[in-house]
Amino acid sequence: MDGLKYAVRKEGQETTCFTVGNLCVGRDFLLIAGPCSVESETQIMEAAKWVKACGANVLRGGTFKPRMSPYSFRGLGREGLLMLEKAGKEYDLPIITEVTDTRDVEFVAKHADFIQIGARNMQNFSLLEEVGKTNKPILLKRGMTATLEEFLNSAEYILSSNNSQVILCERGIRTFEPYTRNTLDLSAVPALKTLTHLPIIVDPSHATGRRELVLPMSLAAVAAGCDGLEIEMHPTPEKALSDAEQQLTGEGMLQLAEKVKKAVEFRENL
Amino acid sequence: MDGLKYAVRKEGQETTCFTVGNLCVGRDFLLIAGPCSVESETQIMEAAKWVKACGANVLRGGTFKPRMSPYSFRGLGREGLLMLEKAGKEYDLPIITEVTDTRDVEFVAKHADFIQIGARNMQNFSLLEEVGKTNKPILLKRGMTATLEEFLNSAEYILSSNNSQVILCERGIRTFEPYTRNTLDLSAVPALKTLTHLPIIVDPSHATGRRELVLPMSLAAVAAGCDGLEIEMHPTPEKALSDAEQQLTGEGMLQLAEKVKKAVEFRENL
Amino acid sequence: MDGLKYAVRKEGQETTCFTVGNLCVGRDFLLIAGPCSVESETQIMEAAKWVKACGANVLRGGTFKPRMSPYSFRGLGREGLLMLEKAGKEYDLPIITEVTDTRDVEFVAKHADFIQIGARNMQNFSLLEEVGKTNKPILLKRGMTATLEEFLNSAEYILSSNNSQVILCERGIRTFEPYTRNTLDLSAVPALKTLTHLPIIVDPSHATGRRELVLPMSLAAVAAGCDGLEIEMHPTPEKALSDAEQQLTGEGMLQLAEKVKKAVEFRENL
Amino acid sequence: MDGLKYAVRKEGQETTCFTVGNLCVGRDFLLIAGPCSVESETQIMEAAKWVKACGANVLRGGTFKPRMSPYSFRGLGREGLLMLEKAGKEYDLPIITEVTDTRDVEFVAKHADFIQIGARNMQNFSLLEEVGKTNKPILLKRGMTATLEEFLNSAEYILSSNNSQVILCERGIRTFEPYTRNTLDLSAVPALKTLTHLPIIVDPSHATGRRELVLPMSLAAVAAGCDGLEIEMHPTPEKALSDAEQQLTGEGMLQLAEKVKKAVEFRENL
Repeated sequence: MDGLKYAVRKEGQETTCFTVGNLCVGRDFLLIAGPCSVESETQIMEAAKWVKACGANVLRGGTFKPRMSPYSFRGLGREGLLMLEKAGKEYDLPIITEVTDTRDVEFVAKHADFIQIGARNMQNFSLLEEVGKTNKPILLKRGMTATLEEFLNSAEYILSSNNSQVILCERGIRTFEPYTRNTLDLSAVPALKTLTHLPIIVDPSHATGRRELVLPMSLAAVAAGCDGLEIEMHPTPEKALSDAEQQLTGEGMLQLAEKVKKAVEFRENL
Repeated sequence: MDGLKYAVRKEGQETTCFTVGNLCVGRDFLLIAGPCSVESETQIMEAAKWVKACGANVLRGGTFKPRMSPYSFRGLGREGLLMLEKAGKEYDLPIITEVTDTRDVEFVAKHADFIQIGARNMQNFSLLEEVGKTNKPILLKRGMTATLEEFLNSAEYILSSNNSQVILCERGIRTFEPYTRNTLDLSAVPALKTLTHLPIIVDPSHATGRRELVLPMSLAAVAAGCDGLEIEMHPTPEKALSDAEQQLTGEGMLQLAEKVKKAVEFRENL
Repeated sequence: MDGLKYAVRKEGQETTCFTVGNLCVGRDFLLIAGPCSVESETQIMEAAKWVKACGANVLRGGTFKPRMSPYSFRGLGREGLLMLEKAGKEYDLPIITEVTDTRDVEFVAKHADFIQIGARNMQNFSLLEEVGKTNKPILLKRGMTATLEEFLNSAEYILSSNNSQVILCERGIRTFEPYTRNTLDLSAVPALKTLTHLPIIVDPSHATGRRELVLPMSLAAVAAGCDGLEIEMHPTPEKALSDAEQQLTGEGMLQLAEKVKKAVEFRENL
Repeated sequence: MDGLKYAVRKEGQETTCFTVGNLCVGRDFLLIAGPCSVESETQIMEAAKWVKACGANVLRGGTFKPRMSPYSFRGLGREGLLMLEKAGKEYDLPIITEVTDTRDVEFVAKHADFIQIGARNMQNFSLLEEVGKTNKPILLKRGMTATLEEFLNSAEYILSSNNSQVILCERGIRTFEPYTRNTLDLSAVPALKTLTHLPIIVDPSHATGRRELVLPMSLAAVAAGCDGLEIEMHPTPEKALSDAEQQLTGEGMLQLAEKVKKAVEFRENL
């Protein structure tokens, strides 16, 4: 990890904190929730209601969706982001969405509170530098096959472009195991905690790809020391246009949020 | 997972329990601790004292050590097992050791309370059948590159040989990430819980290969729902003949045991 | 592979051919050679002389270099491409360079004869669609962790954007083996031959990361049925600003080209 | 690779050769062929006829079959080996079969000309030492997840037990790619050639798991520099009790042997 200037944790250095509205990322536990994709205004409004109800502090929704096949549903684009923005305002929730093209960065930075860089773009260095020029917090997801060293160097691209608000997100790596969609590498959480001062969150939805594993892995992530979670939930998962298998229902999300809250309190007193 | 007869969890089936002395595996939280290798009578006695002190319920110690190189320290063999047995008796702790050769099974079954099958032998089918003929509980470790389906089929070899006392152990899989020794696949815990009725424990020492990651990953494993932990500890890790990097000190073990106990209680009330 | 419309090979369909100058890609054996990076006009001119001398038919040179660290040499950018273009004209060689940003596609399409999409951008779908709008042949490299299905779907993004000139390139996948930089998956060559009509070439330089393995793996790739090779060579590899370990010398390149030529002839008569 | 005493290639050292009947392993190209499993005397006799006809020099047949599930066909055991021995004598072919249990080594060493250690037992160190005590050549297959360093250390176990007749076999490693059964790591061939003096052969049948890939990968293996091949063939593959998908027919084997012979000649004159 020798080449890092800004991402490396210096001895005794605290986890970086920064504020978004009332939220202090890096100190308050970050609970991001919402659907894989924004599908309609009705759907995202309904989702936002549940997200607010469960006490999550950020609303997510994909609008530019990277999909393996060009013929799959690829999101509603800029129009979708405006729907997400409206839902966020309606429920007083900061919003996050993924950007995949340098040419959309300005628009996304204008309408979203956080910008997400997805796993497939972790080494899209032009995109990293472009979001590094905005003043929005960046949620950087670990690439499917990225080592921790590569992950931190990708954060370094953003930091060295003059944006110090970077959140790392472990979301599963690719292995030989077919039972889960990816293999959640939870040891990355305490490992990154020793290597960097950046906040680290976990996405158990994409990591496992299975609804029934999201709750136990969320609790495990909290116990491992993460600073937050990103969870996919959908008002009616069986009708979702993407990732139907892994999205929680509203009820499931309520239950998860309640248990996660207790687990965070327990951890603080351990 | 279609070919499984005995390992598969039937609807509504509880986790299998079985007793070893006062311990009820599958119900009581199993905390196995001790050195990677038995190195001398003094060393294993000293280790056992710590293991007892921290409230762990099984003493481990390797005596037949599978090592990459034929020129590495390979354990004290049968003599080492007798030392381990003595330490177990002295401190009233059931003991566990690994067996690697069918010809040693009878001896190990006579002197140990649990028999361990290591990751490298998970598909040594002769050995699985041989330990399946004993009446001792078998701790079966997941192979470095084994899918959950292969893991459960290996358990099936033991179960179908008429030994129903099998404990599964997730200990990390091999991936591209060099920072940790292996990648701990904690999602295997809740996944296996849905697939099988066998108890499942976690070995964070071999999974991470780094002392500082053992505690957070132990707590994460508890939160994920495991039935126990196997932890490497050594009275003087810096002098250990094998796995020096990952063994906890006695003090570290005390601290871990205390926190794990609280985490188990918290989990039960969540 | 069900979702593919254009990339899939229909029964009896021949490998796709298309012409670039005098070269007929898909029929003539494609031998792309040149330095990892264009470093100066002198260097690329010297490299081009060797490339021409050995009978290779395309000159490569990186000008927009994706690098793990933001502080590494990242290429000369547009200026470098102009140097490469000059060298190509001087030695009557079509040229290829990588593009990493949608905003550079127009410039690269204007000055290069082939456009390369690197492994890290195999799922940069905006970039795929942008190069799909040009009329230049696209060399699409397999992602480090991409399945064949994902690889073909990425080709489909280009094909469905109305550019039918796509060449696939196997360049090694990421595995647990540390001896080589990546693991060259040569079985991908005959596998892709059955799945798609697109030409398939192999890059043994990035796959192995070791100069001494480039020649044997080039010959193996020819025997496996590839339609071409991409080889890194540098007039003075020990002074290279990137990938010094894997670039052949001019002499090494001459020797390789001669043997590959014979191997291609042998294959045709087998 | 520092700990190796016997397996390491010293500067200028030639590939080790040893004779089995008229065959000089390490100098003559080794072509091992035969069914995955010996299923009956009729089947192995018929297979042997094809093997002889195609000019292969060793007859293979599994008799102790390691299978994922205890309920799969696991071979005919000792009786099967006697059938294989009879077929070998009838057609004047040395025979090879796998041993999986230390207690069978003496019997196998008595009846077979070569002893095979399978991928799953590459780190079954007791078994390695036991075959190291015989005077038969050992074919050691690379474990599914073994690094080259681990592979050579396993050879070292045999060599240091006083058996210098070891042949290494690359048979595919486990990766994320689902299209092939394993990923054939052909770069292991030239890499091992620089690291060790032991002969190295390739098994494209288990590596790919697909009949149509066996021929191209055999030719690629020859071009990469291997000292032999092990190919699965069955008189009637569609009726095979194991590995039906990957076994060649007799006709397919004839065609392969003829092309491989030409490829070996070509390689020698290149």
